[in-house]
Amino acid sequence: MASTAPIHLFKRFSSTATTTTITTKLTPSKSHLHAPIPPNLFPSGYLLTGLHIGVKKSTPSPQKPDLAIILSTSPNPTSAAACFTRNAFRAAPVTVSEDVLVQTGGRARAVVVNSGCANAVTGKKGLDDAWSMVKATDALLPPPSKATPPYTHKPTGETLVMSTGVIGQPLPIDLILAGIASQSPSLPTRTFNTDFFAWERAAKAFMTTDTFPKLRARQFIINGREYKIAGIDKGAGMIHPNMRAAATNFPSTSARQLHATLLGCVMTDAPVSPRSLQSALTYAVDRSFNSISVDGDMSTNDTIIALANGAGSPVQARIQEIDEEADQETYLEFRNALTEFMQELAKLVVRDGEGATKFVTVTVKGAPSYKDAHAIASRISTSALVKTALYGEDANWGRILAATGSVPLSSPSSGPPITSQPTVSIDPTRVSVTFIPADGSPSFPVLMNGEPENVDEVRAKHILQLEDIELEVDLGLGKEQATYWTCDFSYEYVRINGDYRS
Amino acid sequence: MASTAPIHLFKRFSSTATTTTITTKLTPSKSHLHAPIPPNLFPSGYLLTGLHIGVKKSTPSPQKPDLAIILSTSPNPTSAAACFTRNAFRAAPVTVSEDVLVQTGGRARAVVVNSGCANAVTGKKGLDDAWSMVKATDALLPPPSKATPPYTHKPTGETLVMSTGVIGQPLPIDLILAGIASQSPSLPTRTFNTDFFAWERAAKAFMTTDTFPKLRARQFIINGREYKIAGIDKGAGMIHPNMRAAATNFPSTSARQLHATLLGCVMTDAPVSPRSLQSALTYAVDRSFNSISVDGDMSTNDTIIALANGAGSPVQARIQEIDEEADQETYLEFRNALTEFMQELAKLVVRDGEGATKFVTVTVKGAPSYKDAHAIASRISTSALVKTALYGEDANWGRILAATGSVPLSSPSSGPPITSQPTVSIDPTRVSVTFIPADGSPSFPVLMNGEPENVDEVRAKHILQLEDIELEVDLGLGKEQATYWTCDFSYEYVRINGDYRS
Repeated sequence: MASTAPIHLFKRFSSTATTTTITTKLTPSKSHLHAPIPPNLFPSGYLLTGLHIGVKKSTPSPQKPDLAIILSTSPNPTSAAACFTRNAFRAAPVTVSEDVLVQTGGRARAVVVNSGCANAVTGKKGLDDAWSMVKATDALLPPPSKATPPYTHKPTGETLVMSTGVIGQPLPIDLILAGIASQSPSLPTRTFNTDFFAWERAAKAFMTTDTFPKLRARQFIINGREYKIAGIDKGAGMIHPNMRAAATNFPSTSARQLHATLLGCVMTDAPVSPRSLQSALTYAVDRSFNSISVDGDMSTNDTIIALANGAGSPVQARIQEIDEEADQETYLEFRNALTEFMQELAKLVVRDGEGATKFVTVTVKGAPSYKDAHAIASRISTSALVKTALYGEDANWGRILAATGSVPLSSPSSGPPITSQPTVSIDPTRVSVTFIPADGSPSFPVLMNGEPENVDEVRAKHILQLEDIELEVDLGLGKEQATYWTCDFSYEYVRINGDYRS
Repeated sequence: MASTAPIHLFKRFSSTATTTTITTKLTPSKSHLHAPIPPNLFPSGYLLTGLHIGVKKSTPSPQKPDLAIILSTSPNPTSAAACFTRNAFRAAPVTVSEDVLVQTGGRARAVVVNSGCANAVTGKKGLDDAWSMVKATDALLPPPSKATPPYTHKPTGETLVMSTGVIGQPLPIDLILAGIASQSPSLPTRTFNTDFFAWERAAKAFMTTDTFPKLRARQFIINGREYKIAGIDKGAGMIHPNMRAAATNFPSTSARQLHATLLGCVMTDAPVSPRSLQSALTYAVDRSFNSISVDGDMSTNDTIIALANGAGSPVQARIQEIDEEADQETYLEFRNALTEFMQELAKLVVRDGEGATKFVTVTVKGAPSYKDAHAIASRISTSALVKTALYGEDANWGRILAATGSVPLSSPSSGPPITSQPTVSIDPTRVSVTFIPADGSPSFPVLMNGEPENVDEVRAKHILQLEDIELEVDLGLGKEQATYWTCDFSYEYVRINGDYRS
């Protein structure tokens, strides 16, 4: 972590070409964040592959995977749900995936992902290409399980599609379609399988500027039955997602787009109804991927997909899916398990944030509403002044307060009036700021009820030198809280992003 | 501009102390932005001083001014107006200045400013200190002109106060009060005068991390009569103001605060009614100081004050003040002159932005409303990805589009419906992005109606190497537009702000 190395830069566009030399802390190595996962943690009923088909440059060897296919082969019905970017310039695969979800009523059974090209700002051809990927992948699917309710209208596809990479270029669609057609789920090969290596290859095919494949799996128990969940995600920059739920009957619009950054897919073998999978996913995304920031920039391709295939349950003519209206308690258990797991996945993106040397947890509590707590945590997490102070290992509570105070609250006044205004206002004399040391030592208040504490600079130095930093702002106004995860702003961030196309 | 120099850093808090060396482009020298101003451009009826009284460290010599006093000595009535930060943690001088404005009904006649200490997070004592500064400065004022309408209630002060500098420390109030008391407007000295040097000393007393004093003056003509206006401002970091008008009858709240960044004071010898001075100032601030960003962080002390003392008009028993209800056309002439002048002042802050190597103008046009155009221009101007791309001299229109698309529009649909939604949506096929070269050569489109242009990389390189960069986003949705001014994000920004307290 404290290792240093010189980085040699050649700024091609400076008025006179100058060589710039920086010797700085290297971003800590992230390699320990990827490791083999025991096979008994992966959900049943999923076949995966990760191929190199030539979207990414083929050098350096070994060839990097750039196409992932995920198929549900469960004998029980598979539900699908998704959250998509709110960006007006949403990409073709976003539009197409939402169409598929709407048409199937949440019963899509496959996911196809390419990296290396975002299929963005590609117009009509981009939409056609995304649909071709859907149909080619559909052809690999086994017939729907008998337990699946028949579609009222035959949908035009059962595959969700995601793309990430370079913008403004058409997909090499012939290569992609040939790659998909070369696979067959009925003839499992080393590249299309259910084992860790298949999951790992798929995870590698999601990567762009990521420094490690992001793959996690775990077990959870609901109503005494054990299920599994696994997830793959990717992202390092242009990370400040604000995704909304897929909307049945949402009018899909033809749109031109760009860029791709946050992608994720979680797969469980629990049986969950489509509507409850969507509502649990929406809740979980708000508290995971919609609560992370690397640079404050929202991408146009952000997509999180969830599949629930029921393969962890016995095959039945009419399987009992987890559903919030049928059994609220069981649904909440599932939602909590999903939320915890998605937080684990989301944090991996922050750990791998461009130029990050710190992993920062920002909790805002004592807020009048979750929405207000979330908005303030987001503002603190995107403040350039806060993030450079954290890079400088400086407990600069003044910058934290300034960011906090710049957010207008939206909660209506209630109970004993705090002010005569229609919405609650922050009361500076109630606000406290505390650092929670990552080493488990007692918490470290820097401001209590608006009064600066006498800060022990030696201890502050120790706490802020740690890679993990947690800061807590208590508004003293209510009982709601929200947590955001972010990273610091470093020289390396400027280097990566000031030198992107060179 | 292309000069380079090594910067030696010692990062005190790194896990193992390491010396970090950077050789990078120096921020261009800003010294040419301050120069003598001919005396005939300054407004009549103002006496100014700038003193060193010891709030700032007295070394290095020469001693830096840290106290400015501005008095209106006009025989005609003086009007005052102000815009203040919306930050919940607003500073004591903000609260006190608003009280004075409310009590006088916009007839304050003096301004006192200290730098070096922000009088922030200082509780009750901070408010008492700010009031002491008001009263000490009041004592320097000549009796109100006979033409001024008498107050209904005797106000507790006629002076507006601003502070900027270190936070969490009490003002050295005895030094400040002694400094104020040492001056007398009836005995003009070399340090309390009407000449350029007095204006310059006052401007220097505003400075904190600014690299040059920000002072401008000009003439303008209304109804065939020539008036003058001069302005002083300061700011380099924590610059993303969002100020609101001072509110008569606005309940002033006791508040604890921090930091201080954007301060400004404009003084004219035109006669303007208090209410019209306030409405013109509010309009002008929205299109000047509320349209600049250095780092996206809103300060807690942001304050812009305007004085209009009528000294440029003949003394009359009942002077005809410019007023929007009495004569709309004359009012609009004044408002336009004020807006143009305040834009000039606001741009100085961006030019002096921390670590800035580029001065960037962002215009969003073709918007359904000014508010939407302003919101999108603000988002582009704060995007870390856009700002690092500009530092890297990279025409990365993808990042500009992503920032554009991340802003939800608020204008209601009207005319031929573009979508079935309640608000207008961005239509990607109508959006164009163009760079306007600073050398006057033809404009350089990079995206036209959603289609990427074939970009001439040699020309792009030439345009982006210039210090001034102008980019224009046309939404193709309406007729409204807004302009923002911002700067790039450089290594130097990280150095300044990651090393602030060391």
